[in-house]
Amino acid sequence: METTQTVSTYLIKKIHECGVEHIFGVPGDYVLGFYDQLMRAKDVKVVNTCDELAAAFAADAYARIRGLGVVCVTYCVGGLKVVNATAQAYAEKSPIIVISGAPGTKERTRNPLLHHMVRDYDTQQKIFEHITVASTVLDKPSNAQAEIDRVLGTALRYKRPVYIELPRDVINSPVEISNDLINVGYEEPSDPLALAEAVEEAATMINTAEKPVIVAGVEIQRFGLQDEVLRFTEKTGIPVVATILSKSVISEYHESYLGLYQGAMGDDSVRECVESSDCLILLGALMTDIDFGISATPIEQRYSIFVTSEKLSIRHHNFENVRLNDFIQNLINANLRTRRPIHLKHIQSKNFSSVKIGKKITVQHLFDKLASFITTDTIVIADVGDCLFGALDLIIPHATEFLAPAFYTSMGFAVPASIGAQLANSKLRPIVVVGDGAFQMSGMEISSAVRYKLNPIVIVLNNGGYGTERRLLDGPFNDLQPWQYKSIPEIVGGGRGFVIDTEDEFENALKASYEYIGGFSILDVRLDPNDGSAALQRLTDVLGKRVR
Amino acid sequence: METTQTVSTYLIKKIHECGVEHIFGVPGDYVLGFYDQLMRAKDVKVVNTCDELAAAFAADAYARIRGLGVVCVTYCVGGLKVVNATAQAYAEKSPIIVISGAPGTKERTRNPLLHHMVRDYDTQQKIFEHITVASTVLDKPSNAQAEIDRVLGTALRYKRPVYIELPRDVINSPVEISNDLINVGYEEPSDPLALAEAVEEAATMINTAEKPVIVAGVEIQRFGLQDEVLRFTEKTGIPVVATILSKSVISEYHESYLGLYQGAMGDDSVRECVESSDCLILLGALMTDIDFGISATPIEQRYSIFVTSEKLSIRHHNFENVRLNDFIQNLINANLRTRRPIHLKHIQSKNFSSVKIGKKITVQHLFDKLASFITTDTIVIADVGDCLFGALDLIIPHATEFLAPAFYTSMGFAVPASIGAQLANSKLRPIVVVGDGAFQMSGMEISSAVRYKLNPIVIVLNNGGYGTERRLLDGPFNDLQPWQYKSIPEIVGGGRGFVIDTEDEFENALKASYEYIGGFSILDVRLDPNDGSAALQRLTDVLGKRVR
Repeated sequence: METTQTVSTYLIKKIHECGVEHIFGVPGDYVLGFYDQLMRAKDVKVVNTCDELAAAFAADAYARIRGLGVVCVTYCVGGLKVVNATAQAYAEKSPIIVISGAPGTKERTRNPLLHHMVRDYDTQQKIFEHITVASTVLDKPSNAQAEIDRVLGTALRYKRPVYIELPRDVINSPVEISNDLINVGYEEPSDPLALAEAVEEAATMINTAEKPVIVAGVEIQRFGLQDEVLRFTEKTGIPVVATILSKSVISEYHESYLGLYQGAMGDDSVRECVESSDCLILLGALMTDIDFGISATPIEQRYSIFVTSEKLSIRHHNFENVRLNDFIQNLINANLRTRRPIHLKHIQSKNFSSVKIGKKITVQHLFDKLASFITTDTIVIADVGDCLFGALDLIIPHATEFLAPAFYTSMGFAVPASIGAQLANSKLRPIVVVGDGAFQMSGMEISSAVRYKLNPIVIVLNNGGYGTERRLLDGPFNDLQPWQYKSIPEIVGGGRGFVIDTEDEFENALKASYEYIGGFSILDVRLDPNDGSAALQRLTDVLGKRVR
Repeated sequence: METTQTVSTYLIKKIHECGVEHIFGVPGDYVLGFYDQLMRAKDVKVVNTCDELAAAFAADAYARIRGLGVVCVTYCVGGLKVVNATAQAYAEKSPIIVISGAPGTKERTRNPLLHHMVRDYDTQQKIFEHITVASTVLDKPSNAQAEIDRVLGTALRYKRPVYIELPRDVINSPVEISNDLINVGYEEPSDPLALAEAVEEAATMINTAEKPVIVAGVEIQRFGLQDEVLRFTEKTGIPVVATILSKSVISEYHESYLGLYQGAMGDDSVRECVESSDCLILLGALMTDIDFGISATPIEQRYSIFVTSEKLSIRHHNFENVRLNDFIQNLINANLRTRRPIHLKHIQSKNFSSVKIGKKITVQHLFDKLASFITTDTIVIADVGDCLFGALDLIIPHATEFLAPAFYTSMGFAVPASIGAQLANSKLRPIVVVGDGAFQMSGMEISSAVRYKLNPIVIVLNNGGYGTERRLLDGPFNDLQPWQYKSIPEIVGGGRGFVIDTEDEFENALKASYEYIGGFSILDVRLDPNDGSAALQRLTDVLGKRVR
């Protein structure tokens, strides 16, 4: 017989059943009682970050790897700090649960304004309604079970954030457990006739096409459909490209993989395969400007099969009530002809660049050299800016071992994300590439790597400012106060620091960092302020026109 | 003849007319064009912080001193980082203008999702509507002037934040200047009959009372009515108390000043004067739990005259359309009898505590010693936690030279606020008291002190964790990774660090910090984890019961 469950223990149990073992956050008085319950739970661990925003970025990274992430904060002063990270998770479809403590239901009737309150008691919830797919205030133990199941289910169905508010006088109230529940994550089945018609039309279109291409988008990762994409390409011989946001959705060494589609910013041969295709099979792709907008030749709808968790269009018409998963499964099982695979020359192990002793390091060399250190045991986490654009050329051997906020592009994601990523999969060692501007926003969160005995390798692309912006419109506002990143280990009580000016120093520091498994490493790579990757140059040529 | 004004130049001009000379922020592509215009403006300077949240805290502090502050950020990835600080400014009535860049009006019609976008183009504005008193998207140059004037005026009228969104293709569009404008900050006059009736009733109530007390609240600072309060008390002999949120509203050495009213947390003689008063004249006070809720004896409405910018109540009835300023002015000029002033013993220069060489420093000693360093040339900025409670005992000689987020209580305010405060008034040297937990959230913003040649003295109350929470409910989640705060000057390229274990080390470090005017100082004061101020103990006795 089970012991009586409370609102907290039921919530913790459900979260754990969804694969969550770590909860990120900073405590505060309205949520202390729930933290106390978390400490008593055997199955989940609390991970205290220095700052709430970092906790949410860590939870986001955790969600991208584990399928769900949780950030737990106090009312308003904690919750409103994670708005930006929640917005990013919304935009890029990463299912995080924001759990916020709150004043007790009985306190809310008193006269004085309660501390941490902004305007009304529901101001925080109202704000989160704009950036989540479901929200609830668990103010009635009688419907807490139903509400928790509903909200968790919605997060899993849409792979987007949800909000749960816990009034502090309710957390230890018993919940009634009902047995005839809707399963968490339940979703309406596809309309069988619409599904059949759509699959038939798609199959015909694919079979009659000369140059079909699969664009494997970010939802393939989010919904765990990587193996289906592999089966699809292996059965048909249709080549696959990824987008920036979905980079590493399949092994970049896979023989069907053509490369990353990046519009005008990327490799021309990949661009041509996509833009000249007479049948583009877009699976779970978000049509973002960074992925699809920066090209002279936009995707033509009349050649497109476009399916996501929210929409299915073939050419110019839409189908309702067809699930992403059902469509892909049925399409794979349809009668599709097999073709001879295309291979583009460039996807192969590079001849990693040789090192010249004493030669000033460049962005190009940095990524060429780093490429030789990428293995199946690493996960590359890129922040925003040239660290992202340069990292796009790294070849990632496994599936989903590249993380970057490549659409919403919030600076300061990568260091906190490395904490979440390594806790989500302790077999992967994070390699963080981050600009100095982004590092100054959130990089001190590396402190949490020391606290939780993690060992990311943090490579700071130090060009003294906001390098991407310099190329768009320069001014002193693009400069930064210089920091001695190498000395950060002395502050936080762990890790090793390196200063790098030359190619050989970089190689030596990388080797030393890989060998040093006892803590984090930070590499301060001093770059020329005017240096940048070739991709950055192509990007800024397009974007610069829109700035003024 | 004036040159043609654009949306940007008009906005910058209006902001400057309101007394703003510094604009805090971090640039991003959607706002770069406006940054370019800011650089061309002679009258305002851009202050680049490391992170957006810090920029907003700096702007908040600037507003508390100058009457208006501005933070300027990019769309969503910048804007949504300042939600928490904007909420604090809303809750504590600090008028900041949030200026956010945004996608151009013409870009918004294109198909691909634009980077930094969350859900819809207006998602950010909708979020800010919950935490501002006015907002606008300047998408039509034809009404830009009217909109700028309306929104600025609302900020000044209510002393609360406002939001201005600048689509990037509009910033350089010419605006038509109309001459028959409503003045910025215009407010409807008081209803003369209601005003007269209210003043008469209040004067009678005061004259017949035996023990009237003036509670000078935070709006007295915000609306610049400090001199009126002085006139009022000097004319009538009625004593004055301040609240935590309004501490330093008048000089704490003034002969009419009784002390801080802090309910059960504060001095008993002050508490008694307030709670036994038969006529409490509450001028511009927010009825917060921290100021008024933590007492066994709540304020009795039947003995209260309660006036703010939003409300006027005498005993149990309300008056509509009476302005705070008019009421106070008219009350001072009413026929009020003069009384002999009350003096409580404790408000006088303390005998500053003597120093014992080698004696372990305590929180009590820290504040006793610090008290002797407070002059008319300093401004004390307290973060949240025992640094705030301890600092309440410091006697502040001038008006408005104590800043703290004493109601919303967002940790991490003080270091960024010191940047804004010293730029707002370069004659005041900031003394920051901050806990180690709050410092780990935003303390690296001290980098901006080096960049802008400021010299705050930062005293870190280092007790290895969240000390206030430890007393409410303890667990490992209240512990922090230890940092070597002393070494931060090596990272950020300026300043001096001290480690302090004993009373004499503290005195010596304080002296050295005061003498070192070339940069910031940081004092890592190592406290016993169980040490705390007497006020903290009294507070946690009350709050602890509500946590579980």
